[in-house]
Amino acid sequence: MRVRLDVAYDGEGFSGWARQPGLRTVQDTLESAMARVLRLPAPPPTVCAGRTDAGVHARGQVVHTDLPDQVDQPRTGAIAADEVLRNRLDRVLPPDIAMHGVRPAPPGFDARFSALSRRYVYRLWDTRQSVDPRYRHFTVVYPHPLDISSMADAAGRLVGLHNFAAFCRPRETGTTIRTLLRLEVRRLPDESIAITAEADAFCHSMVRSLVGALVAVGRAHRDAEWLGHLLEARERAHDIVVMPAHGLTLEEVRYPPDHVLAARAAQARTRRDEAGGCAS
Amino acid sequence: MRVRLDVAYDGEGFSGWARQPGLRTVQDTLESAMARVLRLPAPPPTVCAGRTDAGVHARGQVVHTDLPDQVDQPRTGAIAADEVLRNRLDRVLPPDIAMHGVRPAPPGFDARFSALSRRYVYRLWDTRQSVDPRYRHFTVVYPHPLDISSMADAAGRLVGLHNFAAFCRPRETGTTIRTLLRLEVRRLPDESIAITAEADAFCHSMVRSLVGALVAVGRAHRDAEWLGHLLEARERAHDIVVMPAHGLTLEEVRYPPDHVLAARAAQARTRRDEAGGCAS
Repeated sequence: MRVRLDVAYDGEGFSGWARQPGLRTVQDTLESAMARVLRLPAPPPTVCAGRTDAGVHARGQVVHTDLPDQVDQPRTGAIAADEVLRNRLDRVLPPDIAMHGVRPAPPGFDARFSALSRRYVYRLWDTRQSVDPRYRHFTVVYPHPLDISSMADAAGRLVGLHNFAAFCRPRETGTTIRTLLRLEVRRLPDESIAITAEADAFCHSMVRSLVGALVAVGRAHRDAEWLGHLLEARERAHDIVVMPAHGLTLEEVRYPPDHVLAARAAQARTRRDEAGGCAS
Repeated sequence: MRVRLDVAYDGEGFSGWARQPGLRTVQDTLESAMARVLRLPAPPPTVCAGRTDAGVHARGQVVHTDLPDQVDQPRTGAIAADEVLRNRLDRVLPPDIAMHGVRPAPPGFDARFSALSRRYVYRLWDTRQSVDPRYRHFTVVYPHPLDISSMADAAGRLVGLHNFAAFCRPRETGTTIRTLLRLEVRRLPDESIAITAEADAFCHSMVRSLVGALVAVGRAHRDAEWLGHLLEARERAHDIVVMPAHGLTLEEVRYPPDHVLAARAAQARTRRDEAGGCAS
């Protein structure tokens, strides 16, 4: 049985999503919790839609894992694995991870390869007067006023199918061509700035590099022409600041209707290298 | 020179607003920071609009303090005290306090006694599925679904001039008669519940007791009739749960126009005991 899990987490206490020896990661914490409540001999491997970096948060992370249809439980005997997770997983997860849903995945579902798009939001304050200390773990203080309208204009130019090599960390091995579906800059009622980025997929550090480039424009250190040149670059640009991780949250992952999940996954698998589903 | 300070803080790391020997409090942290940047021999005493309890947050706390008109600074010599605070206070405050404004107070201004009203918001989740772990430090997890509409109805009955003795901690010495200007229950787009309470002033633990009473109604443990009886009580009701402090935030303090500040302060001083300006 393949199970889909919808997960939210505060990234501050984790060394990112992906399991790493000796470090506290979301993947490891989640897999261990599942092994515990399901009484499995080993943690069940999981696949996520967006492999968030250390410090990056998620409100709408999507994960799949393959489990035995039924598991033995002390009092009830054999019981459906997804039901056990729904009833018991919350009680063993730490407070910085919340489970929003556990359900059997539809046929052909793959959390990573079936996804149509990932949407991230980056939050920052550009004046000290707007800082809400309660939000400081997920909103970055940038201590200079930013021109939102020039940032929004520049953002519009980056939308579309481009080679985003300039914005990708060099560890990238495959293609850096992505479809940026949306890149929007707006000021929220609480005076913070929210930058929304949605793409079929992001390469490593791409969202934080896009935000860094927009911030340089918003401060008038750079102009829209500079951004245009970046889209022509075929390697990482060293004059882009990668913004701090804690301002970034994976908000949502979109999937196609159930009957095209398998076809979408097959298409994405052939088009994308190992790092394709990565983001932040 | 009397200075008005607008302050926000994350209450988690503080034992409340009011100075207490050996404990980290907002008042002590703020006064020490002011003494440091102004190079004063002793921390300048402050008065706040809402003396928040341990763990309670603020987005719109208002504070006044009386300072020498000018202070000596190493490079510049004598300089206006409020200017020094505006330029330098941020740099010495810890990240859980943010300064939103420093300005000379208008004549007759008293942060506590000139205030017309205090507005607080209490936030909670009533399903595990809506928990955003990034918000857990200021939003309470209540693990049972609540009926918002019955809570909203009940809230409407509490609005007005009443004796709120049932909702006040017994340490109260003076009157427990207050004007509750607003008590609203609504569900936010992120599925959390926000309860907004505004009154001329609150007695100790009053907001958290009001929220506890509404939660009992929302869970159908109590009804509107029970709430009505509470307004007739002349002492603290022991069947009201005081909700946890970390769900509560002081959002805003309202003041009258400048020319009536002094008259308002005189009126409030005669009407209210020592604990009158207290809240949370």
